[in-house]
Amino acid sequence: MDSKRAEAFSDGVFAIAITLLVLSLRLSGTGTVTSQLLAAWPQYFAYVVSFLIIGIMWMNHHTILAHVNRVDRPLLVLNLLLLMGIVAVPFPTALVSEHLRDEGGTVATVTYGLVMIVISAGFAGVWIYVATHASSLGAVVPQGALRQSIPGFTLGGSVYVAGTLIARFWSPVAALIIFGALAVYYLFEHLPSPAEESAAGKPPAG
Amino acid sequence: MDSKRAEAFSDGVFAIAITLLVLSLRLSGTGTVTSQLLAAWPQYFAYVVSFLIIGIMWMNHHTILAHVNRVDRPLLVLNLLLLMGIVAVPFPTALVSEHLRDEGGTVATVTYGLVMIVISAGFAGVWIYVATHASSLGAVVPQGALRQSIPGFTLGGSVYVAGTLIARFWSPVAALIIFGALAVYYLFEHLPSPAEESAAGKPPAG
Amino acid sequence: MDSKRAEAFSDGVFAIAITLLVLSLRLSGTGTVTSQLLAAWPQYFAYVVSFLIIGIMWMNHHTILAHVNRVDRPLLVLNLLLLMGIVAVPFPTALVSEHLRDEGGTVATVTYGLVMIVISAGFAGVWIYVATHASSLGAVVPQGALRQSIPGFTLGGSVYVAGTLIARFWSPVAALIIFGALAVYYLFEHLPSPAEESAAGKPPAG
Amino acid sequence: MDSKRAEAFSDGVFAIAITLLVLSLRLSGTGTVTSQLLAAWPQYFAYVVSFLIIGIMWMNHHTILAHVNRVDRPLLVLNLLLLMGIVAVPFPTALVSEHLRDEGGTVATVTYGLVMIVISAGFAGVWIYVATHASSLGAVVPQGALRQSIPGFTLGGSVYVAGTLIARFWSPVAALIIFGALAVYYLFEHLPSPAEESAAGKPPAG
Repeated sequence: MDSKRAEAFSDGVFAIAITLLVLSLRLSGTGTVTSQLLAAWPQYFAYVVSFLIIGIMWMNHHTILAHVNRVDRPLLVLNLLLLMGIVAVPFPTALVSEHLRDEGGTVATVTYGLVMIVISAGFAGVWIYVATHASSLGAVVPQGALRQSIPGFTLGGSVYVAGTLIARFWSPVAALIIFGALAVYYLFEHLPSPAEESAAGKPPAG
Repeated sequence: MDSKRAEAFSDGVFAIAITLLVLSLRLSGTGTVTSQLLAAWPQYFAYVVSFLIIGIMWMNHHTILAHVNRVDRPLLVLNLLLLMGIVAVPFPTALVSEHLRDEGGTVATVTYGLVMIVISAGFAGVWIYVATHASSLGAVVPQGALRQSIPGFTLGGSVYVAGTLIARFWSPVAALIIFGALAVYYLFEHLPSPAEESAAGKPPAG
Repeated sequence: MDSKRAEAFSDGVFAIAITLLVLSLRLSGTGTVTSQLLAAWPQYFAYVVSFLIIGIMWMNHHTILAHVNRVDRPLLVLNLLLLMGIVAVPFPTALVSEHLRDEGGTVATVTYGLVMIVISAGFAGVWIYVATHASSLGAVVPQGALRQSIPGFTLGGSVYVAGTLIARFWSPVAALIIFGALAVYYLFEHLPSPAEESAAGKPPAG
Repeated sequence: MDSKRAEAFSDGVFAIAITLLVLSLRLSGTGTVTSQLLAAWPQYFAYVVSFLIIGIMWMNHHTILAHVNRVDRPLLVLNLLLLMGIVAVPFPTALVSEHLRDEGGTVATVTYGLVMIVISAGFAGVWIYVATHASSLGAVVPQGALRQSIPGFTLGGSVYVAGTLIARFWSPVAALIIFGALAVYYLFEHLPSPAEESAAGKPPAG
């Protein structure tokens, strides 16, 4: 299959998943509208963090698939498993939105972190497959790109693991701040254009 | 109509239907968040099975339409009927999610199986039309492709029928496992790329 | 603006609106799952009718925009007003789904018919604009196409008006059957490919 | 990244956000269906205003990105922040729909206005970046376009600020009428095609 069509389908899924995040913005409870709006800050917080994360993941997904000219069945399957994680993001986002301020905040944020760890593993799987099957995919992955990418993936995954542990043993809010900070870091760290990244063999990290 | 536009519209519908599956992930009930999360396993189960099935169907849909250069009105109509089934998938998925653990599990899973049987019939209709109108659609369907494809469609349809009967008379959970196993089978069975499949005249099976 | 981009945006809106119809498939009420499933037949009925109608409208929309090479601001605005009607379809569909069997069925079906009349007017507006501004849009609309199209539009609009009156004064179910029959009629009536329609100057009718 | 892919992703997000507006059309309450339909006028009002606003914003977004051939990381980030505002629009729309007629109408409409002000700032950010980095983005922004665009942006932003103040201190309904009137103004004011606008250096204003 031409990689364009797999990209278009994936783009659609990313676009819908990121837009469905708005569904977790919903007032409920009692009191005046003003007090409900103020009490709903965990919703806005979780919305912003998840939006940035899915946005970054979309950019990274593009960077990975930009390396290949065609996709084969195993890559489609790996991509599908990755998308299965992306699509699920609104679920832990809604969990955190609803429970950050009550006693369920810990388990909600741990669930959030676990979903992110699974997605990171999905990205690593897709990237490793692309890097190790470069020639059959018509890919232009520079020599050594895979090895050079290990620190990037290790960083991303480690931060999600650390955040999940922090959520579990210390503070869900701190964990969410860490997840958001990681997204912001990747927003500004990857300022070179994808073409440059590709040229330099720098891998996307998710 | 150029087949590209029909593909793009269909891709959009597939992408949205697969993403709406997340809406059936929603805690409800009483108890701690942890106990609710654990009790919601039917939701995760149904989410994974339906996600894989729609994902496979998307790939098969692409494989079929990759054979043709243009679509005519009857093919558009058949495709629309097929999409009507795909779009409905989140409904039985939500049914199964909610009722797998109570006395409604049987009827929920039977409904799920019936929807899958209808969709299989829709795929068969689209494929038969493409194979029998190859020349007028600018299609490159190899001679004998239709005949060779009968076993594939028979297998897929039979498994859905068998699963539905198992749900009815024995165990809804077993039926759902069978539906999921069929999806996984197609994930790994069709490792040759679509171009190869087309060359070999192997039909997509849904 | 190149007409491709307006088409792509419109396609996306059609694809999402048609997929959101599944959200009105939702059991509620009491009794066993089986009895709820049986009692929910108005949901399936409304789902099928609305799905066919939006599907037909998507095809007609494509047929209209296939005539032009570029879109100008007034056409974008007319198209936006048309899409405002399309996007709203899930609302009367949900109304009919919920109320067809109770005393609210009449007003629900009348609302449904009114939305369809508004959409028909939107299609007429877009088509008249295209036909009367053919040269500035790089359009290949044959001479006389506009005049020849009047019967088509009159038929579609008349059936919606008649159905709405029938819903008001006689039977909501009969009106819904008429709306569905009109969609089925257009499915099979327009068997010639859009290229042929365009050549023959036959207009799309919505 | 090629600007086409960023546009396609953005188009998807716009299309989904505009379509999700239908979810705030939902009857609730008591009384006959007729009385509920009549009492729901704030829903229709907010639906129309938000639909027009997102539609206009989509056109303006297209006009801006039509200037560039490629997008770099900072532009992707600015675009992502802008989309974060667009995606949120259904939330204040639902707020206004629900509360326009009760004592929460003021805070709901002020929230609506604040979201619009944030989005206006997002558009200004994207436009300023494009205009000041024209050469590196392969952009064809005429000399002086940025300076000439200041009145346009100032007008749009001022009207949103004025509307928000009017909602706070005078009348939420009047504010919503002003927001709608601004959208209608931009619909008809920008009658020249985007190509002409670009040639004349007229900026999009949001």
